[in-house]
Amino acid sequence: MNKQGIKQPITILKIGGNVINDSALLGNVLEDFSSIKTPKILIHGGGKIAATLSEKLGIETKMHEGRRITDQNTLDIVTMVYAGLINKRIVSLLQKTNCNALGLSGADANAIQTTKRPINDIDYGFVGNLNINGINESFITMLLNHDIIPVFCAITHDKKGQLLNTNADTIASGIANKLAQNYEVRLIYCFEKKGVLLDIENEDSFIPKITTEIYQDLKKKGIIFEGMIPKLDNAFNSINQGVKEVILCNPFNIKTLNEKTILCL
Amino acid sequence: MNKQGIKQPITILKIGGNVINDSALLGNVLEDFSSIKTPKILIHGGGKIAATLSEKLGIETKMHEGRRITDQNTLDIVTMVYAGLINKRIVSLLQKTNCNALGLSGADANAIQTTKRPINDIDYGFVGNLNINGINESFITMLLNHDIIPVFCAITHDKKGQLLNTNADTIASGIANKLAQNYEVRLIYCFEKKGVLLDIENEDSFIPKITTEIYQDLKKKGIIFEGMIPKLDNAFNSINQGVKEVILCNPFNIKTLNEKTILCL
Repeated sequence: MNKQGIKQPITILKIGGNVINDSALLGNVLEDFSSIKTPKILIHGGGKIAATLSEKLGIETKMHEGRRITDQNTLDIVTMVYAGLINKRIVSLLQKTNCNALGLSGADANAIQTTKRPINDIDYGFVGNLNINGINESFITMLLNHDIIPVFCAITHDKKGQLLNTNADTIASGIANKLAQNYEVRLIYCFEKKGVLLDIENEDSFIPKITTEIYQDLKKKGIIFEGMIPKLDNAFNSINQGVKEVILCNPFNIKTLNEKTILCL
Repeated sequence: MNKQGIKQPITILKIGGNVINDSALLGNVLEDFSSIKTPKILIHGGGKIAATLSEKLGIETKMHEGRRITDQNTLDIVTMVYAGLINKRIVSLLQKTNCNALGLSGADANAIQTTKRPINDIDYGFVGNLNINGINESFITMLLNHDIIPVFCAITHDKKGQLLNTNADTIASGIANKLAQNYEVRLIYCFEKKGVLLDIENEDSFIPKITTEIYQDLKKKGIIFEGMIPKLDNAFNSINQGVKEVILCNPFNIKTLNEKTILCL
């Protein structure tokens, strides 16, 4: 927030496996990200490199209801791949386009503090749940004030010496919610689809704009269902916490935002 | 340098494979590093994890005169292991001791810019030689001024999108030489021996202090020879460029500096 109490705009972009796995597409997306004029933050997921590496090393990837279980070997793999290979590749490509990127895990400068997920029915292993005050806003703001662009991977820590694997969407929304206190936040989730689809079979049936009211109606009618519900619940939670807008789009629309779903109050 | 023109002391510690490979020792060294009262910077080498991983993946480690040749596969491995696994482990352990560590490759915020080593007789592959103005002093100083402790791995970049494997000793001396303009720099190389030994067979024969004059004499007499010469030439080069002192010691003497070789003017 500046001295006049006006919030400065900021763009927070989360990219996932569909972009990470395709190096030509990744290059284009990073160029588009680089061209965004506002201060900005990138959060990246992992993609299939970690699974491929695990397989080559004969480490079994254990899943429970679509979620990876992170044992010690898997934690080492994702730390190597997410915080090392992918994060530094992205940073070096952004630096090439004169975007002054700085790669971060949550351990770095205690940027993101999490707590190992408690064992209830299932032990997810070294997985971190975001702490209530887990986002180090003053550090992130300090970087932004020095025109440094933070690039977060989804590895965090508990401040007790333990690295933890964390959901990249959760990190993106956590940062967005925290920064909303002082910034006008636009949070973009880049995923496979053009947006939230009215008809899952028709890629062009994306809904351009969904308000809280429309969302409740679409849920009631069963038009939005299954996997999209937690994603959108999460997005509307961000909006309720002061994030100005959440956008869902595919990698080809990050720059122009011609085709997208925009979620807002 | 402060307003009175007095240089602030800074400690730059380089640790190598002998520490990285031994997790109990690494923990102790990091605690000792954490207890250093001056502003400080850590530079770490790689150790044997990268070689072990290469072996498991069936990637041949090619060497030429003791130097690794970094092909694309090897670059991916060292980026994963150095910038990912080792760097983030170190950062999370330092954070545990309330040392506000931030892990960095040279690509991050363009901290260290290098140029791919030209191919003469031998192609070392993706290996970077430090550029003359390759150390981003203003960025490093900015972090130090915010009480953030930089932790560098030995991966750098050419600012054209290419990551490059770089010698950790070279990075340590490069940073020391650059910061010497504004800081009173103590550069510590932590290695296997107690210091520079008069008798290679006798660990306790370390020479407590070597000046430029004594060094020339010891070289002439053949007491310092082979592998130590490039290391000490490099150290005295730093001293000639304004680094106040270079210390060689083993991991058990970082805190007390009871047993060491100190190199100075």
